[in-house]
Amino acid sequence: MPNTDNPTAAILIIGDEILSGRTRDANMHHLAGELTRVGIDLKEARMIADDATEIVATVKELSVKYTHLFTSGGIGPTHDDITADCIAEAFGVSIGVRDDAKALLAAHYEGRGVEFNEPRMRMARIPDGATLIENPISIAPGFSIENVHVMAGVPNIFSAMVAGLLPQLTGGKPLLSQTYRIDRPESTVAGPLGDLAERYPDLSMGSYPFTRDGAFGTNIVIRGQDGAQIEAALLELAAIFPANETA
Amino acid sequence: MPNTDNPTAAILIIGDEILSGRTRDANMHHLAGELTRVGIDLKEARMIADDATEIVATVKELSVKYTHLFTSGGIGPTHDDITADCIAEAFGVSIGVRDDAKALLAAHYEGRGVEFNEPRMRMARIPDGATLIENPISIAPGFSIENVHVMAGVPNIFSAMVAGLLPQLTGGKPLLSQTYRIDRPESTVAGPLGDLAERYPDLSMGSYPFTRDGAFGTNIVIRGQDGAQIEAALLELAAIFPANETA
Repeated sequence: MPNTDNPTAAILIIGDEILSGRTRDANMHHLAGELTRVGIDLKEARMIADDATEIVATVKELSVKYTHLFTSGGIGPTHDDITADCIAEAFGVSIGVRDDAKALLAAHYEGRGVEFNEPRMRMARIPDGATLIENPISIAPGFSIENVHVMAGVPNIFSAMVAGLLPQLTGGKPLLSQTYRIDRPESTVAGPLGDLAERYPDLSMGSYPFTRDGAFGTNIVIRGQDGAQIEAALLELAAIFPANETA
Repeated sequence: MPNTDNPTAAILIIGDEILSGRTRDANMHHLAGELTRVGIDLKEARMIADDATEIVATVKELSVKYTHLFTSGGIGPTHDDITADCIAEAFGVSIGVRDDAKALLAAHYEGRGVEFNEPRMRMARIPDGATLIENPISIAPGFSIENVHVMAGVPNIFSAMVAGLLPQLTGGKPLLSQTYRIDRPESTVAGPLGDLAERYPDLSMGSYPFTRDGAFGTNIVIRGQDGAQIEAALLELAAIFPANETA
């Protein structure tokens, strides 16, 4: 595999609504694109239910296995928002209402004439030793503890938290990629592509079949950290399958 | 947790293109909805790269943990399509070109005047002891071995395979659900909803905040196997937060 020097990551999506099919998760795909851009290799994504035992076990497993673990969901005000408590348990630390988080929320609700009630106070509960992640949209913060970054599930809040968080994390070399479209079915492309992949062990080559207007085609994506190598492989591929050639 | 008598399932999405953010997976969400409909509890989804060690280990782990494991991706004709080999390895069985799968593909390509070449033959490689899953779209079959169901990643082919497969699997009691919309922010709903959830331990109650035209609202989803219980809980909720009431 290429990119062995890059930091690695997993994302953990938490919520019954994803597994029941009620909601289609958007955060995994968003984060995948952002991590590729900054040179962090997303190795795995998991989606699990609002089940404390499962959350604690999964956080322990993935935080040890990868450089970073990003989580989405379960930090709102309701009884089924148990992510913060589970993270505290996974790291063996206490959790309670934190003054800075409480102050942020109090100011936010006061400014809008909204009561700062018990469920809302719940969103100021942060595991000991964590750093807050800013939420410019609805204020209730996420948090990072060691290498685990805990964010909201609502897509626009998740994206805003990621945008603030990523520049603070160590980025490796960015991963470069080039796409080449071949108007032939994947099974025609497969043989020559396999040979090419063998001769460029530092690059990863993926083939993605599509149909358009009833005709089969294949997009080839070549990824790696060395732009000149990618270019050389692409030229070889173009020599075998010239552009605009029809089957 | 409710539904403890239902069969359980996980889905494993295999493919670098998902983790790099190039492709947004659609199969997990589709399968989640279909499984809910037939009363199989989807407990977990995972997305991993085209990495043999990781695929074999994950298949072993999830096939033991759940009643069914469904996989998506990696059964096409190219060098990076390694799912079938990994499944064979996970179950400790041999894999080779199987006559019935080969015959299906040969007839398909012959009928279209397309050469049945080596990469296409690769799609007839099936682990020993597996049962074929029909592919009405591009013919190359999926397969089931023990409790693992191996399907294509292309969304319309995946959906067609699921449609053929599911009626053959044992379904448990269907999971019922009702949704109730409250035009109040989630943090206002949270307290009363928590109390209600405590009084109905056999039901699962989820709350999903939304904003519409700048106003906050919350959809409440109540799930369970007893329709009368769901109805009773819904009436209690409607008494606390009458419909069309504004905050």
